[in-house]
Amino acid sequence: MGKRVAIILSGCGVFDGAEINETVLTALRLDQLGAYVEFFAPDINQHHVLNHLSGEEMPEQRNVLVESARISRGQSRDVRELKAADFDALIMPGGFGVAKNLSDFAFKGADCTLEAGTLAAIMQFKEAKKPVGLMCISPVLSAKIFGAGVQCTIGSDESTAAAMTQMGAAHQTTEVDGIVVDEANRLVTTPAYMLAQSISEAAKGINKLVEQVLKMA
Amino acid sequence: MGKRVAIILSGCGVFDGAEINETVLTALRLDQLGAYVEFFAPDINQHHVLNHLSGEEMPEQRNVLVESARISRGQSRDVRELKAADFDALIMPGGFGVAKNLSDFAFKGADCTLEAGTLAAIMQFKEAKKPVGLMCISPVLSAKIFGAGVQCTIGSDESTAAAMTQMGAAHQTTEVDGIVVDEANRLVTTPAYMLAQSISEAAKGINKLVEQVLKMA
Repeated sequence: MGKRVAIILSGCGVFDGAEINETVLTALRLDQLGAYVEFFAPDINQHHVLNHLSGEEMPEQRNVLVESARISRGQSRDVRELKAADFDALIMPGGFGVAKNLSDFAFKGADCTLEAGTLAAIMQFKEAKKPVGLMCISPVLSAKIFGAGVQCTIGSDESTAAAMTQMGAAHQTTEVDGIVVDEANRLVTTPAYMLAQSISEAAKGINKLVEQVLKMA
Repeated sequence: MGKRVAIILSGCGVFDGAEINETVLTALRLDQLGAYVEFFAPDINQHHVLNHLSGEEMPEQRNVLVESARISRGQSRDVRELKAADFDALIMPGGFGVAKNLSDFAFKGADCTLEAGTLAAIMQFKEAKKPVGLMCISPVLSAKIFGAGVQCTIGSDESTAAAMTQMGAAHQTTEVDGIVVDEANRLVTTPAYMLAQSISEAAKGINKLVEQVLKMA
């Protein structure tokens, strides 16, 4: 019987939503290892919509749940429906959507808070001691979820690591293909596109994270 | 020296644009095999915008090139800038965008025509005898590009295959992990999500297509 893994998305596109490559690489490795995957996202408007070609803000509103369904081929569910009891593990890819839609880290740094529905879902996994995998920018939320002393990585970006330290995290510098495992908190983190220069580089760390999360599930 | 491969996208999202999983799987395999990849798309409005959660049309306009840059992490170029002389091969993922934006196959079937810039780009590869890989719904355009008798596959969907036969293609029924190679036309096709029930299933045929295209390049 395959493990059941929930993936929380923050939209569709690296600059204002979920990082697409990270999401697909995660889903691929999970599927190759026989896991059952479901996608979730909050039913809220994106902080903003960025033209991914020019980088400029567009005069539009897009919904995080609706846009996330582009990656999930129509199969995303409201994160408020996510029950840890139905799953063995949780994984959250990166992308600026994590710091703009699932939290306000992009604007408030160490003073950030998480979107309520997303936080409630993650806290269920924490309380059930089910493994959680965070990649790319997502590990900045580690201390807000698991508290002071949590071991995690976003790679080697100094200002991001400093904000994490300020929140109480025990940040560990890693290479692109490295993972940090906090056994006590059942948390696995990897830098992915915080460091990756190519999609195959990103895949190395993501594959390790997925394999570790399934091992702990 | 790695091979240089151009990928033409039709937007971002299976129902009104490019199939995201197919695109990422293609880019991953190309990168793993040392190929250099660039993304292109036409600078035109999408035929329409579909809410991927509900399937309903949204009262919006989105640009194919701009939306494609969500998958390419900001690196898409106008397809009119694509010169076959700069590349060793061309690959086109599927998604309804191929049948709605890069052509009007979704509306006109066998009477379809291709978007002018996209057609001009593909014809350069044909004339240079550089290999072309088409997957999912993209092979429906084979006869319009390579003429009557072209060997190709979209899997086993009877009505789609019938339209292809009407256009002059020699459709071959294949399994999800199969490819059809037309040596004379330098064309490789695979069903991908025309048949795939999971992302790892899609990856099997896509990986074979990528490997074959690079072998011929």
